[in-house]
Amino acid sequence: MHSVLADEFRSRIASGRWPEGERAPSEAVLCREFGLSRGPVRQALSTLRAEGLIVGGRGRPPLVRRNAVRHAASALGSFTAWAIASGHTPGQRTVEQSRRRADVEAAERLQVSLGDPVVTVRRVRYLDGEPVMFENQHFAWDLGRLVMDFDPDSGSLNSYLAACGADLYASTHEIDAVAASADEAADLDVLEGSPLLRVSRTTVDSVGAVVEYADDLYVPGLTAITFENRLFGPQTREGTTP
Amino acid sequence: MHSVLADEFRSRIASGRWPEGERAPSEAVLCREFGLSRGPVRQALSTLRAEGLIVGGRGRPPLVRRNAVRHAASALGSFTAWAIASGHTPGQRTVEQSRRRADVEAAERLQVSLGDPVVTVRRVRYLDGEPVMFENQHFAWDLGRLVMDFDPDSGSLNSYLAACGADLYASTHEIDAVAASADEAADLDVLEGSPLLRVSRTTVDSVGAVVEYADDLYVPGLTAITFENRLFGPQTREGTTP
Repeated sequence: MHSVLADEFRSRIASGRWPEGERAPSEAVLCREFGLSRGPVRQALSTLRAEGLIVGGRGRPPLVRRNAVRHAASALGSFTAWAIASGHTPGQRTVEQSRRRADVEAAERLQVSLGDPVVTVRRVRYLDGEPVMFENQHFAWDLGRLVMDFDPDSGSLNSYLAACGADLYASTHEIDAVAASADEAADLDVLEGSPLLRVSRTTVDSVGAVVEYADDLYVPGLTAITFENRLFGPQTREGTTP
Repeated sequence: MHSVLADEFRSRIASGRWPEGERAPSEAVLCREFGLSRGPVRQALSTLRAEGLIVGGRGRPPLVRRNAVRHAASALGSFTAWAIASGHTPGQRTVEQSRRRADVEAAERLQVSLGDPVVTVRRVRYLDGEPVMFENQHFAWDLGRLVMDFDPDSGSLNSYLAACGADLYASTHEIDAVAASADEAADLDVLEGSPLLRVSRTTVDSVGAVVEYADDLYVPGLTAITFENRLFGPQTREGTTP
């Protein structure tokens, strides 16, 4: 029964009856419509969630997404600039802005000594009012002391740092996937254990010293990272020329 | 108790007592060592799994990974070439090699008509004997008829197509995360619902016609995709010059 239901839900999304970017009916409404108990409805929604066709649904009806907002890998690192360039309204809610002593991970990733001061900023980032990313940024003290003076609820930290003359030269990104923790799930309006796209960034200054590292967790279905390459170009052009 | 255990397991990984790339002790062995029931041991392992420090563990003890094999985004598209370049031994097991009629998704993504012949190749890809990626490739018929003559258990399909003079010019990749289905989980030796990194690829020929699309599912912890950029370069160089 749940797989028949999942087919029906998929075709409603494909046909636009459940429009992209809007909320699907609640479980209760679907139970009434199909005269079914919660079990099969929930299982069918869970299938669509695993496929990335719907997202969220903690307490609220799930959100329908067919086409995620695409974030070019070449522009990774500035959420605000990306949001505006893609025609969406960026937003943020600060969870933490703190000066701490470097723990093992911070010391290793920032190449500072254990116990050195580091500054952490953790923010939920929004597109058009929907939470789409959990940003965890950590700064070595030279930049961190500037960051402590910044109001992280005001918008772009990158623009602020650029205006301060900060030397953020190049970033290396490592992309993988993780399961949402209970806290992350609550902040991102997804279910605990849901897959999140993790972008781990390390930023160096123009002499190669690490100045920032970050772990950004994106909600799939709402966002995707894009990249183009021409891996086969040379060989195949050669191959097709007589 | 489980969070104390998780701390202990993390420090064993960090110290190398549980070496990278090798199997951790089984649940049963850990229960005996700590004199605990399965509950807290399983919960601690599950925490480490969510953090990407261990992977797998369907029936077998989990595999420890601190540093995933990194796949540069600029080289996405050739598993075999990447594996060899990174010093690992590639492998594959073919799950499906079939000629089918295009369904709605294949017709849309290959820009062919519904019912046109398309060729699907689905393979589990291995690094050093461990399953790390589930590859789902779909070809329009011009390439597909070549693919039907290929032995997908023999290795690189890209090399074979290049040798045939196939015109694979450029690829666009969209990267997000999904939860492993029961089948994918079984083939990749992970738990059902585990996060997987999904790379959706569309390849065009030199005149821009779509010739292939693929959905590759990578096991996080074993693999990661890397990308470098210089988003802040111009502004900050200007900013730091008096």
